[in-house]
Amino acid sequence: MPSLPPAIAEERLADARIGRLATVTPGGRPHVVPVCFALHDGHIFTAVDAKPKATRALQRLANVRAHGSASLLVDHYEEDWTRLWWVRVDGAATIEESEAGIEALAAKYAQYRARRPAGPLIAIAPERWRSWVASEP
Amino acid sequence: MPSLPPAIAEERLADARIGRLATVTPGGRPHVVPVCFALHDGHIFTAVDAKPKATRALQRLANVRAHGSASLLVDHYEEDWTRLWWVRVDGAATIEESEAGIEALAAKYAQYRARRPAGPLIAIAPERWRSWVASEP
Repeated sequence: MPSLPPAIAEERLADARIGRLATVTPGGRPHVVPVCFALHDGHIFTAVDAKPKATRALQRLANVRAHGSASLLVDHYEEDWTRLWWVRVDGAATIEESEAGIEALAAKYAQYRARRPAGPLIAIAPERWRSWVASEP
Repeated sequence: MPSLPPAIAEERLADARIGRLATVTPGGRPHVVPVCFALHDGHIFTAVDAKPKATRALQRLANVRAHGSASLLVDHYEEDWTRLWWVRVDGAATIEESEAGIEALAAKYAQYRARRPAGPLIAIAPERWRSWVASEP
């Protein structure tokens, strides 16, 4: 199937304002949430903001602790289906207190500069990049 | 955490033009792809279009066969983070040749009326609805 050149796939992922983070629950069920994220030094960082005791935060952290893997998907939708594309990174996921990761998130999002992420970050070390494009760019 | 009233969550999911389908690979890794889908008679249907031999199609079908579960996420992003929301359905997934499912997809998408989905559908029977909203609607 047609894919994007690696440099373009990386650029589109880096530029995307939102991605979807898929993990697996300790019980083996799929889990997916929308996330803001930043690509820094070859790693993807995403914050678990605001309310560390909220269920959603605990769930994704529990999933990462249980399996150590995650996938991040970025995609483009419009009604002209010849213009669709997506980029996905599958990798090893860890929970980190990373100042560099927080800096990268704040550099990308003014919202994080106004209120810096407090909690731990999920870091993904890419193991596999996949992309798909309906028509060549 | 604040959630949407069930009727509004269902309406927003039904109206969304794209969702992200998360499944688990036979090896226990997360997998996520963007999908068009339709809600019909309480079930979610998504097609595996066009090229049945493509890796992406086989992967999600293999995942559903292996685990029988899937999650579908719909979300809204804008730079004003007080306006964010998402809706997610977790459920039992099966592979079906469903004429009613194809009809529902064609009713929602003109693109599918122009070219009807040929392959099997993935059907999700919702077991759990979850939603989140930054501010009450």
